[in-house]
Amino acid sequence: MEFKRLTPYQEALKLMLDDLGEVNDEEVSLKEALGRVLAEDVTTPFEIPPFNRAAVDGYALRAEDTFAAREYSPVTLEVIEEVPAGRAPRKRVEPGKSIKVLTGAKIPEGANAVLMQEHAIREGNLIRVLRPVAPGQNVAFAGEDVKKGQVVLRKGQILRPQDLAILKALGVKRVRVKRRPRVGIIVTGDELIDEPSEDAFRAGKIVETNSVMLMGLVERYFGEPVFYGVLPDDPHEIREAMEMAKKENDLVLVTGGSAFGDRDYAHHFVRLLFHGTTIKPGRPIGYGERVFVMSGYPVAVFAQFHLFVKHALAKLVGARDCEIRVRARLMERVPSQLGRYEFVKVRYEGGIARPIKRRGSGIMSSLVESNGYLVIPEDSEGYLEGEEVWITLY
Amino acid sequence: MEFKRLTPYQEALKLMLDDLGEVNDEEVSLKEALGRVLAEDVTTPFEIPPFNRAAVDGYALRAEDTFAAREYSPVTLEVIEEVPAGRAPRKRVEPGKSIKVLTGAKIPEGANAVLMQEHAIREGNLIRVLRPVAPGQNVAFAGEDVKKGQVVLRKGQILRPQDLAILKALGVKRVRVKRRPRVGIIVTGDELIDEPSEDAFRAGKIVETNSVMLMGLVERYFGEPVFYGVLPDDPHEIREAMEMAKKENDLVLVTGGSAFGDRDYAHHFVRLLFHGTTIKPGRPIGYGERVFVMSGYPVAVFAQFHLFVKHALAKLVGARDCEIRVRARLMERVPSQLGRYEFVKVRYEGGIARPIKRRGSGIMSSLVESNGYLVIPEDSEGYLEGEEVWITLY
Repeated sequence: MEFKRLTPYQEALKLMLDDLGEVNDEEVSLKEALGRVLAEDVTTPFEIPPFNRAAVDGYALRAEDTFAAREYSPVTLEVIEEVPAGRAPRKRVEPGKSIKVLTGAKIPEGANAVLMQEHAIREGNLIRVLRPVAPGQNVAFAGEDVKKGQVVLRKGQILRPQDLAILKALGVKRVRVKRRPRVGIIVTGDELIDEPSEDAFRAGKIVETNSVMLMGLVERYFGEPVFYGVLPDDPHEIREAMEMAKKENDLVLVTGGSAFGDRDYAHHFVRLLFHGTTIKPGRPIGYGERVFVMSGYPVAVFAQFHLFVKHALAKLVGARDCEIRVRARLMERVPSQLGRYEFVKVRYEGGIARPIKRRGSGIMSSLVESNGYLVIPEDSEGYLEGEEVWITLY
Repeated sequence: MEFKRLTPYQEALKLMLDDLGEVNDEEVSLKEALGRVLAEDVTTPFEIPPFNRAAVDGYALRAEDTFAAREYSPVTLEVIEEVPAGRAPRKRVEPGKSIKVLTGAKIPEGANAVLMQEHAIREGNLIRVLRPVAPGQNVAFAGEDVKKGQVVLRKGQILRPQDLAILKALGVKRVRVKRRPRVGIIVTGDELIDEPSEDAFRAGKIVETNSVMLMGLVERYFGEPVFYGVLPDDPHEIREAMEMAKKENDLVLVTGGSAFGDRDYAHHFVRLLFHGTTIKPGRPIGYGERVFVMSGYPVAVFAQFHLFVKHALAKLVGARDCEIRVRARLMERVPSQLGRYEFVKVRYEGGIARPIKRRGSGIMSSLVESNGYLVIPEDSEGYLEGEEVWITLY
C-alpha cells in the first residue's frame, strides 16, 4: 500500500499549526528566564535614563564657556562642588563655574555638557579646560534610551542576557513566560537495542538513537522532553503508551511505524490531519491530535523535526522566531526531483554552503558533519553551483 | 590621567588568549552532554552500518532478475523467507528467488538490492515485480556511513543532539567533556541600587544590571557564573573580593573601576597584561592573572564580553568555534574613527543588517533591539551603504 496523496509541505505545515494553540504562562524569576519565551509585552513605567546624566567622569559645565578653549590657550573655570558616586549635585552651574561629576551622576542645574576629566588640568579649585565641548556632549539625556510607556520587549521574544538586564532596569523581578511544553517521546521497533554488540548486529539489530536525539532537539527548541521508552512492534503496547503520553503531554512524538510497513501501527491510533507529505527525506510523517507519527530512520526523523516539530514547539510557546537563516553561496549544484520538498544538509562556513551528499536516510555521519540545511520546494529542480541560497542553521 | 597607549585589539586579544590554558576534563552521561564541549577525538570501534542492510521495507533479490520487469509485464519471483524485525535472514537468495525484509534488516546472502514492497504485487509465496531495480538500490552498505577507526567527532566540538545520537550508536555511554569554567562576577559602584525608585533616582542612583547580563552571557558561553555581589567603591572590599574570586574561579570579571576615575580601583589589584585598548565602546578594559577589569556601563560591558571574555571562555574549554558569522548587506553607511576597533550593534534580518545607532554607552535598548554586531578595524573608516559585511550573531 502506498500513500494515496502526498500533502504538499506548506499545506501540511499549516494544517498542523492551525490545530495547535499556545500553552499557558507562568511566572519565573529573572535568573530562571534565560532562553524562555516572553508571554506578554513589557512597557516601561519610567524613562531611561530617569534624568540627564554624565556619560563620563569629568566636569559638568556650560558648553559655551569652553568654546574658546585650546590646548595652547586653556579656559579657566572654578570647581564649585565635587559630587561623589550615588549622590545628586546640590549646586547650580553658573557661567565660569563647573561641578566635578562621576559617570552616571545627575547633570547639575545650569550645566549642558560634561568635559572629560582627561581634557582638563586640575589646579586646586580651578580647572584649565584644554578643548571645547559641544552642548549635550557626554550627556545621556533623560528618556533617550527608553521613553515612558514604550514597549521595550514584545511577547514572543526569546529572552537573552541583555533582555534580562533591561527587565531588571525596569524593576521587573518576576516575568511572565510561556510554560515549557511537555513533549512525550515514544520510540518503537523490534529491531532496536540499547547498545552495540557483535551478536546483536549479526542478529540484525540496530542501536536506537532517536531517543537521545529527539530529547536534545526538544530541549533546544523550548520543550521539556519526557521519554516513554523503546517499545516493541506490538500494537497494544504502542496504543497504550500513546494514550498515556497524550494525556500527560502537550505534544507527542512517536518514531517508527509511520509508513505502511507490516509493523507500522502508530498511525492507526490517532485521527491524522495529514499522513504522507512531499518532504524528502521523511515523507511518511503524519500529524493529528497533538501527535506526530514519525519515521524510524534518524536522518528522516531529524528532517521531520526541523520541518514540522520545531515549528509546532514555536507555536506552542508563541515564539516569534525559531530559526537563524543566512545567505550562502552553493559550492556545488544540488539537483532535486520535482514534486519533492527536499531537505538538504549542508556545511556552512564563511558564506559558503557545501551540500553533504550521502545515500540513504540512515546516514548519521551526515548529520554530524552538517550545521544547517537548505530546502528545495516542490516546483524547483534544485540550485546551481554558485547560486545564492538560504541556509537555516542548526 | 589617560591611557599612555591603547593596545590594538588583536594584540590585546592575543596577549589574553596566550595567558589562558584549558580547564580539566570530566566525564558525563550522554544526557548531560548536550551543549558541552568534547574533550577528545571520538573514533568508531566498528563500521556503521555494521552490515549491508535494507533501506526500505520490501524484497531482497538479485537486481539482474528484475531488469526486464515493467508494470505491464511483471517478472515473477518466489518468496522463500520472511524476516521479521530484529532477526537475520537464514536463507540465501538464488536466481528467481527473493526474501521479504523490513527496513534495517541484514541483506541476505546472494541478494544485491531491495525492491520496495510498493513496487511488487504479492500473491501467496510469489511476487510480481512491477519495475526494475539497480544493483545496490535500497541497500545501505556496511561502513558507508562511518568506517572503522574513523574520527567521527573531534575535540572541541560543541555537542548537539545529532552528535549525541552518533555517540550512542557507537556504544559510548559516558563522554569526556571540558569542565564548565567557573566565572566569578564582581560588580562595583556606590551609585548602584538593586531596583528603581523615584527617591533613588533623585539621589543619582542607577539600577545595577551587569550582574544578570553577565551571568546570562557566561552561562550561554560554556561557563558557570558565580556572583560575588555589588560592592561599594571601597578599595579594601574590592581587593578582598577579587582575591577570593581568583582563588575560587577559573576567570574573574570585575565591572566598574577599570578606567582612571577617582574611584576606579580594580585595576590596581592585578598585574595587567594590557589596560586600555582600541575597542569602542569599552576602551578601558584590562586583563591579567585571569581577571578582566571591565567598564561599568552595560553597553561597554556587553562589547567587552563579546570581544574578549567570550573568546577567553572558548579558549578555556577548547571550543573550536563560539560564533555564528553571516554575510549581510548594510542598510546604511557606518562611519568609524581611524584607530578605533569599533563594535557596532546591528539588527540582522533576511540578509540585511541595519546599524542600531544610539548615542552613549548607557543605551540599553540598543542591546535589546540588536541581534548581532559588526566590527570595524582600526585601519578602516567604516563601511558604505549597501556594502557586504560580516555580522556576528548573538
